[in-house]
Formats: sequence, structure tokens, C-alpha cells
Amino acid sequence: MYGLCPHRYFPLAQGKLVGDNIQCGYHGFTFAPKGKCVLIPSQGTGSGFVQPVYRVVEKAPLIWIWMGDQALADPDQIVDYSEIGLSQAGWRNSDPLYFHLNGRSQLLVDNLMDLTHLAFIHPQIDGGAAIVNTKYIYEQKGATFRVTRPMDMPWTGFHDFLYGPAVRFEGISRVESVTDFYGPEFIRTGSPVTIAIEGYDAVPDGIGLVYFLHGITPETATTTHYFGLSTRNFRLTDNGLSQALLEIDILTREQDVVAINLVERRLQDAVARQQELLVKSDTAAVRVRGIIQGMLDKENLSNLSGEQGCGSIKASGPEVGD
Amino acid sequence: MYGLCPHRYFPLAQGKLVGDNIQCGYHGFTFAPKGKCVLIPSQGTGSGFVQPVYRVVEKAPLIWIWMGDQALADPDQIVDYSEIGLSQAGWRNSDPLYFHLNGRSQLLVDNLMDLTHLAFIHPQIDGGAAIVNTKYIYEQKGATFRVTRPMDMPWTGFHDFLYGPAVRFEGISRVESVTDFYGPEFIRTGSPVTIAIEGYDAVPDGIGLVYFLHGITPETATTTHYFGLSTRNFRLTDNGLSQALLEIDILTREQDVVAINLVERRLQDAVARQQELLVKSDTAAVRVRGIIQGMLDKENLSNLSGEQGCGSIKASGPEVGD
Amino acid sequence: MYGLCPHRYFPLAQGKLVGDNIQCGYHGFTFAPKGKCVLIPSQGTGSGFVQPVYRVVEKAPLIWIWMGDQALADPDQIVDYSEIGLSQAGWRNSDPLYFHLNGRSQLLVDNLMDLTHLAFIHPQIDGGAAIVNTKYIYEQKGATFRVTRPMDMPWTGFHDFLYGPAVRFEGISRVESVTDFYGPEFIRTGSPVTIAIEGYDAVPDGIGLVYFLHGITPETATTTHYFGLSTRNFRLTDNGLSQALLEIDILTREQDVVAINLVERRLQDAVARQQELLVKSDTAAVRVRGIIQGMLDKENLSNLSGEQGCGSIKASGPEVGD
Repeated sequence: MYGLCPHRYFPLAQGKLVGDNIQCGYHGFTFAPKGKCVLIPSQGTGSGFVQPVYRVVEKAPLIWIWMGDQALADPDQIVDYSEIGLSQAGWRNSDPLYFHLNGRSQLLVDNLMDLTHLAFIHPQIDGGAAIVNTKYIYEQKGATFRVTRPMDMPWTGFHDFLYGPAVRFEGISRVESVTDFYGPEFIRTGSPVTIAIEGYDAVPDGIGLVYFLHGITPETATTTHYFGLSTRNFRLTDNGLSQALLEIDILTREQDVVAINLVERRLQDAVARQQELLVKSDTAAVRVRGIIQGMLDKENLSNLSGEQGCGSIKASGPEVGD
Repeated sequence: MYGLCPHRYFPLAQGKLVGDNIQCGYHGFTFAPKGKCVLIPSQGTGSGFVQPVYRVVEKAPLIWIWMGDQALADPDQIVDYSEIGLSQAGWRNSDPLYFHLNGRSQLLVDNLMDLTHLAFIHPQIDGGAAIVNTKYIYEQKGATFRVTRPMDMPWTGFHDFLYGPAVRFEGISRVESVTDFYGPEFIRTGSPVTIAIEGYDAVPDGIGLVYFLHGITPETATTTHYFGLSTRNFRLTDNGLSQALLEIDILTREQDVVAINLVERRLQDAVARQQELLVKSDTAAVRVRGIIQGMLDKENLSNLSGEQGCGSIKASGPEVGD
Repeated sequence: MYGLCPHRYFPLAQGKLVGDNIQCGYHGFTFAPKGKCVLIPSQGTGSGFVQPVYRVVEKAPLIWIWMGDQALADPDQIVDYSEIGLSQAGWRNSDPLYFHLNGRSQLLVDNLMDLTHLAFIHPQIDGGAAIVNTKYIYEQKGATFRVTRPMDMPWTGFHDFLYGPAVRFEGISRVESVTDFYGPEFIRTGSPVTIAIEGYDAVPDGIGLVYFLHGITPETATTTHYFGLSTRNFRLTDNGLSQALLEIDILTREQDVVAINLVERRLQDAVARQQELLVKSDTAAVRVRGIIQGMLDKENLSNLSGEQGCGSIKASGPEVGD
């Protein structure tokens, strides 16, 4: 439901639930789940007013909201959880994380679609330097966009940390770093996927997958709710690994938050002074910007895009529940 | 006097009084009470410059300022203190209170003219629920506007608190909750006035009156000085009641400040998105908005109304002295 | 070098030096001292891009930067250090000071060119009242502007503090308070220079000179870096005097910072309401404003002057090094 009461624009989140209805905390205007104003206490009746509501799909542990044109809301666009290891048999979800960005959502999308920053702002990720200069393979399917970075890589300290020394191998492995964008606005990154190891017939089971999930919900034109989770399909009962992975995940996302906040602070002025220098590694980010803009245009909402603080209306994305 | 020195725009309030003149704290420019610049120390003389001054009337314990067109300043518009119990024989004034609002003055006027919020944000006022749904009687006389809400009410915990158990009655009383707006910008609210008690010949003297006084002085277009006082005509020597009443008064006004600050924060954006939903209980607030706008129009100041930070010039209202 | 990476507008100051090059802390874009982008790690090569760089002259203990048109950068404009006692034989530099102003640089220039504020905001400067009302002698030479204020003065407490009682004299001395503006943007003020003492053949050597140096570097259109130093040519080994002088210098500059911040906060609104009242003592400030504006016009940068936050580009001034 749109967050401000139409009477005096008081935030409904400061009200309370009365049964399934929400009661505004100022004058008690009460709205039913579909938005209908069912009680104005001072009149003892409801009114014909209907508060805007947005299509929400609860799919544990996430809640998905579509804040655009409701006619275009399509639950089939929600990422297939089996693609991201979320709440799947044989997989383990991490604790949910939340960060508040003082930056527009595009800056987080840019960050995640171009991982060449790993070596520079995430020094804790051993082996991150390998991702700096790779080939790129791009695949678009509707509002979904994948960038695959194939690399050759030896066993690193990060392998040790993730998989343990028991499955250690000698020689070079073929890995792929994959980032998937699911139109607006969810991203899956992950540890490099080991495809083949030189001199081995197959990749050992113990060298599994870790996915880092990024739920991006614009709050205003220049601030963003950033939800995080990770999933993995190995060492499922190893709580020590869960804890260590959570810590490295929090640290990494916090570093991105700091960088994005620094960029946002003077972005408008900076863009006016100097044209953005785009390079090869930006291809995925630029393609994804185009996908999002295309969806906005489709809704005829593009004319609002320059408006101050209007992000929360046209934004869509997940919200982490429990 | 207008608050910024015309020389370097330093706030005169940071200066000091030299006799009856005010000396700017930066370069010592000195202004006589009527605004004339009587000394520029670096020249050893005054200048022809006259700083704007505003009509002020000191009427203890309040100071009244008229910041609009001085030709329209009319001291007879100041509320008759006998109507508000202020500094009257047989009445007691509370200590003065001050609050700073991060919200436009209109939000406070709206709040006070529509008391149906009592049950929702002031839970400490026992019996507040009775005011939610009443009849309304409106009376306008010039820039004064009264809304009366007649109600039937039993003895409540709030009666106990105010009048003490000695005058407790059984049965239902007829009460009126009265709010008076005195054009710009002073409001009197009060405890419900007991008019008649079922089965009694007269209302006992001990069931007296409490008036809550609200002095509203716009500071900028989106911030407001909020002065408070209460007066009562019973239990005059009961210091315990004075203290308890002061505490409940402070709590109540602070709750209003919190609500108003929450509304102001995103108001401009909210109004652009969604038209205000006005209901019956807003009638008084809307009438009073009209009175204020009418006075502004009369001064040909309405063309300034959209201007950032200009509230302090066209604002009028009381300032609490001692 | 312009401070934001052209790729994602990340602040280069958050990066690190790799040899003589600066490497952006986000994606590792690396720039050579003359601005050339010599490495984009994700491409393994540089690019044709050249980041704007500014002419810098290191002249201990200051670094001078020219942020305007590089063709107009003229190191000969840098103040001759022998005129300001900086790093000269027979002189002693104080520790360097730094203050951040929430005010436009012009307010600091105005402040320093018109010392009639001494008596009002710097009460710790004994004898400051003498400067309030003096004659003025103006001299302009290119971008340099001098105002001299000749005064008659007895020995004061400030003389005692600076020179010690050993050189105390009776009677009246002729002094000159001199402020020199060196186009953009460096100012020298100083203790009054004793020219002659009634009844003495010569001014004793012990009555030397103290210069207060003010390096003014605009940060944005409404904020300023303010660097400070003092120099003196007497009691050179007296560490107690150095410490006491430093303390009075910090206090004095902080008082100016407070005043300027107060003025800036509502300046835009204030200027719109009321025309600036200029008086005789503003002559120097107004002349210097004209010199600065003339230099800006010469660079055809004047069309940028109304632009939000653009001060840092067109700004020039010193930065204190060590």
C-alpha cells in the first residue's frame, strides 16, 4: 500500500494493524488490504477513497513488490528460486542482511554488473584480481541478462576458505564468474563456478556453488533499500563456514555501500562537468540500464524519471521477510 | 526588527543591546528601536538607512508581533485575555513552554482545529475517544473562528485527574469541546466544558475550565516556533495539579510535534502525488486556512507564498516573554 | 588533478599512488601525473582519455594551485615570500592551521579586507578598537590590493604580549595596519606596524612584525578551505610566545569561521530581501571582489558563477603542505 495516508500524509507505517486493516496513527483512517478506506472514525463510516496498493507476492523468505503499472505485474517474472538456490533442498540460505544506501539504485546495479572492482575495493576476496581482465559472454532473455566471465585459475586461498583443503587440487581449473540480472531489480552473483580441472575427469562434488543474492528496492530517486542473502550447496551443516561466509558477505556489501555513497554525494554535479567514460567492462551495466529504462518507458513512467524523490512509486524489487 | 544586519547579513540576535539600541555583533552597526541606523562605528556616524521593524505589543506574559503590512496591524485583533483566562483574577497561568517545529505552521493549525486525533496520538488523555465522532457547530467572526463539539460524557479518569474525586458525579454530563482560532495565529483549546449534569441543578464550581493556549509563529516556510501555556480557574493553589498538568501538556504537545515533523518531511512530494482527502472533521481547519489566506491576499503578499524561507517576513504571531 | 574518476565518479582521493600515478580505488583506472589514463585494468591497456589537471607549484610550506584556464596560470603571481616573511632568514613560521568554512570564499575575503570587526568579534585583541575608525590608503598593482590604515596608538596590552615589557615606550606611536590581497586568493594581515614613536629617534628592533597569512581555497560555491599561518621576525626562539600566538590566532580565526557560517546559512534568502548596505570600510572588500570578478571574466568562466557547487573548478588558491 502507498505509504502516506491521503488525509494528512502521515506515514501509515507509524500506524497499527487492526485485524487485517491498517489504521493510520494520526486520525485513525483505516484501510482494508485492497486499499479501500473502510473507516474514518470522525464520520463513523468509510469513504469511497481507495489508497493505491501494489501487487505483492510472498515467496519465502522474500516478499516481491511490483510498484509500476499493476496491469504489467507478472509473477512469472520473479526469478525461479531453483536458479538461485533459494529455499531449495540440498541448499542452505544465509541469514538475511539489510543495508540502506544513500545512493540511487542504478549505482548498485552498475557495481554488481561490473565485478572488475573486486581487486580494488574488496581486498578480502583472495583471487579477486583474476576477474579484472577476462572475456565476457553476454546473454539476454527478456528482462534477464547474464554476463559470464570465463577464466583460468589455480587453487587459491579463497578456495581453501570455501571448500576446505580436503578437495584441494593441483594445476589450473577453468572457472566461470556469472552475474545474472533479473529485471527489476534482483541480481545474483556468486563464487566462480569451477567447470573443469586440468588432469581431472570431473569436478569434485565438494567444490560447490555459493550464490550472493542482491534485492534492490529504490526508496527515493537517490536512496535505495539493499537486501542481501547468500545460498550454497555444500558443507551445509558447517555453521562455522556459515558464520565466516556471513562476515565476509557483510564486509563486502558494506564496502560497496561506502563506495556508492561516495559517488552519489556529488554525482549530479559530476555528470554535468564530465561525460561518463564507459569501457568494455561496463557493457553489462549499460545493457541492464537499457533493460530497466525500456521497462519504465513501457509504463509511460519515463516522464517521471527526473522527478525528485519519485523513485519509490515506480520502483519494484524484493523486500526480505522471514 | 528584521533579524539580519543589512551590511553583511549577520544575525542581529547575536549582537547586544547598547541602551535601547541593538548593536550588530560583527561590525557594530547600531540600530535604534524604530530601525534607524544610528551608528556605523567605522564612520563614526549613522546613515540614512532604516531597518524594517514590526509592530510589537507587549501584553504580559506574551509579546505579539505583526510581521505583515504595518498599516494593517490592529492591536484590537489581539485576543481578549479574559476569553482565554490569561493573567486574570481567579485564574492561574502555567509555566510557558516552547517547541521548535520542523514543519510549516499550517500543519499545527490543522492539528489543533481537528481534535479527532486525540484518541490516536494522545493515549494519555482518558476520554479522548469521545471526541472522535461528534456534531460540529461553527462560528466565524472576522478573523476569529470557533468550532464547538457537543458531547455526552460520563465522569472519566481525566475528570478525576483534573477536578479530584470530591466533585465526582454519577450519570451523564453534557460537555462542549471548544477550539477557538484567533487570526494569525493563536489558538485556544481546552478541556471539555461541562454544561449540564443529568439530575443536577447546576454544574459544581469545582468543575472548572482549563484552556490550552497555542502561540504559532512561522519561522520559515517550513519551520515554526510553537509557544504553549495553559490557564485554569480551579484548584488554583494546588501545585501538584499544576505540575501534573504541565507534564501532560508537554507530553501532548511533543506528540503533535513528532507527528507534524513526520508529515512535513515528505509533504511536498506527497501533495504532488496524491490529492489531500478532506473529510467532515477538516471543516474547521479548511475554514481557518481560508481566513489566513484571505489575510495574506489582503496584504498582496500572496505572491510570496511559494517562496523558500519567506515565512518569517509575512508571519505574525505571539512570542512568549515573561 | 580533477578529483573524480571519469568512469564512475569515484573520488580519486580515496585511491592510492602507484609510483607517480594515481589509481582509482573503485575499478583501478590509473592516471599519470599529466592526467593521461595509462591503465584500465579490465582492458589491460590505457585509453585516450586525459583527466583535467591543474597547474601546481610547490613552494614550501605551501602548495599553490591554479584551477582556472591553464594558459593564464602565471607562477609570478604567487606572492613573493619575502613580502610575507614566509620561510625567510630572520623569520619564524608558525605551525600551519586548517579550518573548513560552511561559507563562500567571498565572505572570508570580505572579513579580512575590513578589519573594523576586530572590536566586535575579537575581544581578545586588546587595542582592536583603535582600528574601527581610521583613514584608509588604497593601492592596487595588478591583482594585488593593499589597504593601509594609519593610526596613532599608545603602548597597549597587546604590545606587552607581543614584544614584552623590555621595549615598552611611553607616549603615542604612529602605526599602520596593513592588509594585502594577492589575487586569487591569499591575504596577509598583521599586527599594526610601528612607524614612529613620539620622542624616539627610531623604532626599537624588538618591536618587530607579525604577519597573519590566509590561504583561501574555494571548495564549492558555498564552502571553503581556509589555511592559516603566521610569521614573525622577533623573539624567534621564544617558544612560549609561539604557543601563545598560535592560541590567539586559532581563537581569532575560529571566531571568523563562526561569523561567516552564520552569515552563509541564510545568505541567498537575505540578499533577495534586502540590498547589501555598503559603507566606507567596505571599499577594500568591494575593490577586491572586483579584482576577482575581473579575473573570472577574463577566463570566460563568469557564466558558471551561478552554478551550484561549481566553485571547486574555477577556484584557485594555496593548499598548505609541510
